[in-house]
Amino acid sequence: MTSYQPTKRSKAKRVHDRVAYDHEAVHEVFDALPMCHVGYAIDGQPYVTPTIQWRQGTRLYWHGSAASRMIKTVSAGAAVCVTVSQLNGFVMARSPFHHSVNYTSAMAFGHGAAITDAAEKEETLRHMFEHLFPGRWDDVRGNTAKELKATGVVFMEIEEASAKTRGGPPIDDEEDYDGVDCWNGVLTVGPAYGAPVNVERNKPGIGFPDYLKHMRS
Amino acid sequence: MTSYQPTKRSKAKRVHDRVAYDHEAVHEVFDALPMCHVGYAIDGQPYVTPTIQWRQGTRLYWHGSAASRMIKTVSAGAAVCVTVSQLNGFVMARSPFHHSVNYTSAMAFGHGAAITDAAEKEETLRHMFEHLFPGRWDDVRGNTAKELKATGVVFMEIEEASAKTRGGPPIDDEEDYDGVDCWNGVLTVGPAYGAPVNVERNKPGIGFPDYLKHMRS
Repeated sequence: MTSYQPTKRSKAKRVHDRVAYDHEAVHEVFDALPMCHVGYAIDGQPYVTPTIQWRQGTRLYWHGSAASRMIKTVSAGAAVCVTVSQLNGFVMARSPFHHSVNYTSAMAFGHGAAITDAAEKEETLRHMFEHLFPGRWDDVRGNTAKELKATGVVFMEIEEASAKTRGGPPIDDEEDYDGVDCWNGVLTVGPAYGAPVNVERNKPGIGFPDYLKHMRS
Repeated sequence: MTSYQPTKRSKAKRVHDRVAYDHEAVHEVFDALPMCHVGYAIDGQPYVTPTIQWRQGTRLYWHGSAASRMIKTVSAGAAVCVTVSQLNGFVMARSPFHHSVNYTSAMAFGHGAAITDAAEKEETLRHMFEHLFPGRWDDVRGNTAKELKATGVVFMEIEEASAKTRGGPPIDDEEDYDGVDCWNGVLTVGPAYGAPVNVERNKPGIGFPDYLKHMRS
């Protein structure tokens, strides 16, 4: 099993949550949760920018306006932390202390880099589409040279990373199971697709595509 | 209208998304999205830690193990960025460039501080419960002195903040509405509560409480 090697940056200090460092576990979480939070610092001031990430091998990619602070900083090689997380449930225990959340998360560390070649940018954006909406790329027009220039595409080779999850029931102090009379369990919550909206300007005869059917209610 | 005063830290550079700095808009987003990502840096290395935040006035609060790196760093007064975001939809346009996401987000900057007095900690945690699950606090037992000692409760006075959202349909280049024949619209996605699980150890006669009925399917 290939693993990321934790240093003190990513080594878990507590063991009540499940932590994994192997590529398979870490990659699975990044692949499942496209929405990420990119952390970087400028003169000691931290910034946390939400964006969409996708993975190719042991690299995480994201993009944005070439003029944005985040893209400029990451392109210049800044130290970066990319975190994804999903809240899966509120864990309702018999004491405040044992209330918790069930979640899936992963955190990766590395240094930013930019893709500057136009053809390589286009190919990388195609990968993004293939990851997020397989089949979509062939349905839309390609990027123009001007659009590619305005798009900053960056990546981070994962230097170390960990995946961390909590699942299952509340774990109470043994005496509280009998001693505290309140309802307990997990309130599940998670993302769900709804009905497509804002479709007014589709041309007559243009139907909802098969390749998006897993993304609608 | 009271507003946070943006400096270059939080001032939006582009205007295609709706940005607000007023207290009402910023607080509404933080109140609606408890899951946050806390950014801080140690020796220039950024970290992004997911956790649950709640707001009191113009302060954001969160908590964690008193032994954790994040709580220790924030308690020591570190510069902090707290970001919340929710993905509301994938915006499917006629060109890759105009694909986007609909989202709700807010970002706040400040410096960390710790609550150290035990009674004040307990009162602050009660606020958290009243915000997340009104009615729950009275149903569980209080924290013990040992539990309070193990719990780090921190906050950040918001020095500046902004809320940023995107909503609505894909906005395509005018010539693409006729020129590109693919389906377009917004794939909506959002959090939804499911059925409660892991309730096996509830005592007979202990039913699901009224105060949690808005948090289940």
